[in-house]
Parts: sequence; structure tokens; C-alpha cells
Amino acid sequence: MALNKQPYRGTRDFFPKEKRVRDYLFAIMTKTAESFGYESYDGPLLEEVELYKAKSGEELINEQIYSFTDRGERFVAIRPEMTPTLARMVAQVHRESSKPLRWFSIPNLMRYEKPQRGRVREHWQFNCDIFGSPGRIGEVEILQVAVELFQAYGANHTHFEILLNDRAIVDAVFKIMMKASDEQTHRLYKIVDKAKKITNEALQKMVKEIGLNTDSENIFYSYLHLSTFVDAIAFLEKNNQIDIANQFNAFIELTSKANLTDYLKYDPTIVRGLDYYTGIVFEIFDKHPDNRRALCGGGAYANLLQIFNEDPLPGVGLGLGDVTLKDFLEVHNLLPNLENPSNDILLTFQEDAGLDATLKLAQVLRKNDLKVIVGLEVLKFKKVFPIAEKKGVKFITLMGNEEISSNKIQLKNLLTKEQHEVSLDDLETFIKFIKA
Amino acid sequence: MALNKQPYRGTRDFFPKEKRVRDYLFAIMTKTAESFGYESYDGPLLEEVELYKAKSGEELINEQIYSFTDRGERFVAIRPEMTPTLARMVAQVHRESSKPLRWFSIPNLMRYEKPQRGRVREHWQFNCDIFGSPGRIGEVEILQVAVELFQAYGANHTHFEILLNDRAIVDAVFKIMMKASDEQTHRLYKIVDKAKKITNEALQKMVKEIGLNTDSENIFYSYLHLSTFVDAIAFLEKNNQIDIANQFNAFIELTSKANLTDYLKYDPTIVRGLDYYTGIVFEIFDKHPDNRRALCGGGAYANLLQIFNEDPLPGVGLGLGDVTLKDFLEVHNLLPNLENPSNDILLTFQEDAGLDATLKLAQVLRKNDLKVIVGLEVLKFKKVFPIAEKKGVKFITLMGNEEISSNKIQLKNLLTKEQHEVSLDDLETFIKFIKA
Repeated sequence: MALNKQPYRGTRDFFPKEKRVRDYLFAIMTKTAESFGYESYDGPLLEEVELYKAKSGEELINEQIYSFTDRGERFVAIRPEMTPTLARMVAQVHRESSKPLRWFSIPNLMRYEKPQRGRVREHWQFNCDIFGSPGRIGEVEILQVAVELFQAYGANHTHFEILLNDRAIVDAVFKIMMKASDEQTHRLYKIVDKAKKITNEALQKMVKEIGLNTDSENIFYSYLHLSTFVDAIAFLEKNNQIDIANQFNAFIELTSKANLTDYLKYDPTIVRGLDYYTGIVFEIFDKHPDNRRALCGGGAYANLLQIFNEDPLPGVGLGLGDVTLKDFLEVHNLLPNLENPSNDILLTFQEDAGLDATLKLAQVLRKNDLKVIVGLEVLKFKKVFPIAEKKGVKFITLMGNEEISSNKIQLKNLLTKEQHEVSLDDLETFIKFIKA
Repeated sequence: MALNKQPYRGTRDFFPKEKRVRDYLFAIMTKTAESFGYESYDGPLLEEVELYKAKSGEELINEQIYSFTDRGERFVAIRPEMTPTLARMVAQVHRESSKPLRWFSIPNLMRYEKPQRGRVREHWQFNCDIFGSPGRIGEVEILQVAVELFQAYGANHTHFEILLNDRAIVDAVFKIMMKASDEQTHRLYKIVDKAKKITNEALQKMVKEIGLNTDSENIFYSYLHLSTFVDAIAFLEKNNQIDIANQFNAFIELTSKANLTDYLKYDPTIVRGLDYYTGIVFEIFDKHPDNRRALCGGGAYANLLQIFNEDPLPGVGLGLGDVTLKDFLEVHNLLPNLENPSNDILLTFQEDAGLDATLKLAQVLRKNDLKVIVGLEVLKFKKVFPIAEKKGVKFITLMGNEEISSNKIQLKNLLTKEQHEVSLDDLETFIKFIKA
């Protein structure tokens, strides 16, 4: 029986065309992160499951993780996310590192998911984190990274928006203004997390079940109706949360200085899970009606190193998956045409005797940083052009009997249709024409 | 109990410094492969174990592979090598692709090994393959890729050599000249594969056990003593293997035209396992006495697609691991200094009021493709220079009260110690100084 040629369920084969798209996505991520001075890191594919248990919720550990016992009886998992690895690595070096630490990575991650649009089992995720930044400026910088990343893909505020909240506000509303207990706060977080996906009736039923008094319930519904930064700040002030209001106001002013205003929108339902985040939290949403999905999420956290018994180190980070990003760029027609590769020159010979000179020429051109494809057998004139097109070649040469005996060759520019006769003894001129 | 901060056994954490080295290795691989027109591809991290069983030996499947059953009862493995994935992908597209197909990849692979020098559980491997090349020129091109790759790292024939053989020769010697049966041939391959690692006595004992006649044994020992291409060709001619001799001679002449002569050495013990390869086989060895190890191996194969019931498609490929490559470059002192990152400019402010102008300036500089680090808090003059050094920055600015009120700033070149006063209204000049 012949073997199956398809990739394992939920994973992708990246043929050269698909790989070029991935390389393009990653190149912009790398360039943007490095333009802010972030440094690239990576960790192992496998981690001990203990690490994920310490950091993540039970659902992920129990159902979504690729875990197994290795031949040495270690219980390990293929990384489903990068943050635990990042925490482990930062815990090793943070004490002797000068702050802030700015790190980024683009790891492949695996989760056992039911494959569907935007969800696969193996995906790549851009992770960008800053540790030990003073005050709230690190939060602003991570938002800047996100915005400048999308701008580098050609997107602007007509294509996406950043829905933002502050966990300090949520905590103040629930714990101080509504006087909710820890257990009630926990349930409120869960409700808020789901608020956009359920009906008003379902929401009210869930709130009722918590057993808050009417005043607190009213505060909760008022909170859920906030939709601008001005409203949110006024709401906090009205409810005597002056410190929180001032801090948030100062943060919003900072984002304005960083030219982020057009991209930011207050959203009380953004909390990003129950644990982990302690400061701002945000999600980037596609504005296209056919693709209303979160593309990127992140926020500020204080206790990442706690599981290693290390002192708190404030961090801010974001994560952005390759699948949703590609869908976003496609739906807005922002992906460049990467159908064909891009090469400098195709060298062909029309007589066997041309092979020698062709091999020599190719070697010199490669040493001069050119991308050179050698036609490895005698090619008829007619066959050269379709190959040149498919390989995205800018120049071609043909080496027939005449060229071999005269030692001169025609260099054809396929775009301008110009043709130069160049001596094979004068490769400097040859290279100059190609690089011009 | 605090969690373990160390990576899983046999894997590596790539902190920014180590990641820069890895990025450097990969950048040269990518650049070299692309200079020959090879196109990048990638496949999934997991494949069904069936695929590896069909291609590989039992040792790999049974003891070295990271395999497990997924939640959907599929028996899968983390890829231990790339070739089976490559075969699966090529089998999908080879019929409608114009030949030759030139593909490369740098996947991470996992094998359950006992960690030791040069051997880890997770490593990366540069894979470069050409399919459907005419005659023997594809074999020459893959050797050229290998040599130009090492040259791009700064190495030459004083640092490494390519030990080369041809499976057509080995088959002719064993099957025709020695008249060995299939089973005897199989055992001879195993002996040759081990020849360099065992004593002469052990070798002779193993040969004796095969039960060949004395003439055949003598041919075998003569074969094992061949050490130059000239000798090998003469040996074949003397034993009436004229066709094989002529074909090998033509191949060696081709390698000479491709400037490979200084790097190649005939080695009768290179066979690279029992199955798979059908044409040339080679291993690249470090010449350094402290590091006599194979760095890279490859060869020509004809039947890669057989497991998919596809027609034969001749291929030639090579594989090169990141760990042995790094050891090689280190032992020869060929690694560049990547201790610190490389950034263009560090923008600092000495008064809180400088933040606004700094954020604005940073944004413009980043849009102009510069790598910009912003000091996120008031930095004393003395603190600026150590940070600049650690971050590999070429220029710095200081923004104090005077600069803020005059709107003029000092741009310091840390290398030349030159200093330019530039107006913040004339960023073109500012950028010109940095890019000069």
C-alpha cells in the first residue's frame, strides 16, 4: 500500500510558494522588533509538563497539549505557547542583566485543536516582551511595536483597531466599587471574558447567580457599557477611584504622544483570562466585516517569575499568530505577490561546449552576491524564457557556438528588453549591468 | 518547590547571544543556497510514524525516535530527519514541476540520544536537494553548494576535505568483481561502513566470516586501500569495469571544471548506510586534529519516491547539522564576534520633559530603517555609555534642558568620537549622518 502524501492533520506543508509568504511575514516581524532594539531568542521544542502546569490553566494541560513520556520517564510536552519557556529563560539571567530586557521570538507551537479556519495544530507565533521597563512606558512601547508591525505590512487604522483595558480598572470596579468577594470576582471575570459571545439574557442570568446586591449589579452593567477612554476615566472619578483614574489618564496621554490614538479603543470586556495579566490588556481586531477576529493579544504582567521563586519583574508582551495574520493580510489584499521566487540571472548554454564557461561564470557571479541559476543541460532558445519567468529571473544569457568562440556574450534584461554584449574577460562590466 | 530553570535534557536555550550565532549560521546557509537558485521549503514538526518506517532503518524507529500516540489514536513522531518529509512533499508536486527542482530547508529535528560533544537531542539541519537534474551535473552542483557554503564561513581546503565515493563503484566491486551474493554484499557494506572504526584484526575476522573465496577477499582488501581518484579508476579498468571507470572519470573531470579538485579525496569506506543512496556519496571532514569528525554528508539517490508508488526521480542532497558546524567554526576560530547585538542609535533624555521629543524622533528614525533604542527613563550621563556599548550602538543622543529649549541635539558617533549638532527640524541631515 502506498503511503499517504498529505501532512499530519492540522499541520501544513510549506512548498516554496507558501514558504515565501511565511518568510515575508517573519522578515517584517524581525525587522520591526529589531527597529526597537529587541533581541531574538529561542528555546527548546520540548519542555517538562510541570512548567506548563505551573503557568497555565487546566484546559490547556488536559486537552490541548501534545504531551508524552520520554524514554527516560520524563513527562514532556511540545511547547503550546512560548511564555513559560520565556519565563524559565528570563529567570536564569534577569539578575545580572541590565534593564529593560527586550526580547522577541517566532517559535512554532503545537496545540491539539479541531482544525478550522484560523486554527491549526502547528502554528508560529511572534512573541515580543519587555522586562523591567520603568513606569508605564513599556506598555506604550509594546503597543507601538504592534502598530508599527501592522504598518510595515501596509495596514493602518482603517484595517485594524486595538481594544484596550486595564486590569487595575477591572479590579477596582469589582473589588472596591462592587465590593465583590474573591470568589465573586473570579466569576465576574469569567462573565466579562464571555460577554461579547453570549446574549444579554444569558449574561443577566449569570450575573444574577453570583448574588451581588442591586447597587453592585448596576455598577457592573454601567461598567460594561463604557466604550471610550473619556467615559472610563469619568466613571472611575465619579466612583471615587481618583488614583486609578489619574494613572489611566496618564497612560492614555502617553499613548497619544506615541501617535497611537487613532488605533486605540476602550473595551471593558477585554480581560484576557483570569490570571497572569496585572496591567493593561489588549487585543487587536480586524475591522474587515468578513474577518472580525482577534489577531494579536497581550498585556502587562508582574508575577511571571513567581513559579521559580524569583522576585517580581514587571513585563509587557504580545503574541501574534501566523495563520490569523495571513488571513488578515489576504482579506485586505495586503500580501505582495510571491508566486515566483526572485533571482538575478539564468545562465544557459546551447552547445555542450558551453558548460565550462557557464560554470566558471556562475561561480564568479555568486561570489558577487548574485542569485544565479545554471541551466544544467543544453537548452533550446524557446525553452529558456518560460524557465526564466517561473524562476523570477531578471537577466539571461545564452551561450552558443558563436559566444564560445568570441568569448563575448549577450546579457538580456528581461524587464527592459535591453541587451548588452559583454566580454567574458570583463566580468566587472557584466556584474555592473546586473546590479544597476 | 521551585521549578527547574534548566532546559529539557539535550536541548538548548538560545539566549540572544547564542541566537545571534544561530542566526549567523542560518543566514549563510540561506544566502548560499539562494545564490544557486535553491528555494526554501518547510514541513510539519510531526509526521506519522509509518513514513519513517518506510524510509529508515529499524534502529532509528525503535530507539532514537520521539514517537507517541496522539489524542486521535494516530501514531506520530517528531521529525528526526527531513528527508521523509521532503519525499512526501516532492511526491505531491513533482509531476507538474519543471525540473530540476532545487529546494533547501533548515528544520529543527529531534532524536533521543545520549547528550555528548556534538550530539544533542534537538538540533537544526541544513538540507539542500536537487531533483531531476540531467546526467551527473546535479551531483557536482551539490558539492559546489557544500564548498561555497564553507567558503562563505571563511573556511578553505586547509580546514576541511570532502571524502567521496560512488555507490556504482562499490556495487561493481562487490557484485561483479567479487561475485558476492546479495546477502554477502549486505554484510560487506556493513563492514566497509565500520572499517575506519575497527582494528585490522577485527576487520579480517568479519571478512573471513562472510565466506568469500581468496580471490574475492584480495579484491576487497585492494579496494579498501584505494586512496586517490586515479587509483580507483585504474583499479576499475584493471578489473574490466570500463564503463564504470569512464563514468566516474567523466564525473571527476566535471568536478575539476567546477573548481572542486582541492577539496575532494577518494575514500572507499564512504558508503553512507545500506539503502537509499545509488550514486555518489560523500562526507565532509574537519581537518583539525582536535575535531576529526564528519560535518556534513550526502549523495545521489534514485528511489526516494518509491514509497509513494511514484516513478523514480533522481535526486542529490546534503545534510549539515548546526552543532558540528559551530564546533568546526569555533575550533578554527572562524566565528565572528557576536557577543553584543548591533544597533544604530540610543536616544536618551536627561529631563522628564525630553520624553516627548525622544518618542517622536525614535518613530521617524525607525521609519527610516534604523534600529533605535529608547532609554525609557531619565538616564544620567555616566549611565548612557555602558548601555550603548552593551547594545552595540553606533550613535547616541542626550536630551537635556538645553536641547529641549533649542530644539537642537548633539549626535555622537561612538566609533569616531565625532559630534554633530543637528536640528530636530532637519531630520534628513540627522538620518544622513547615521547612515553615512
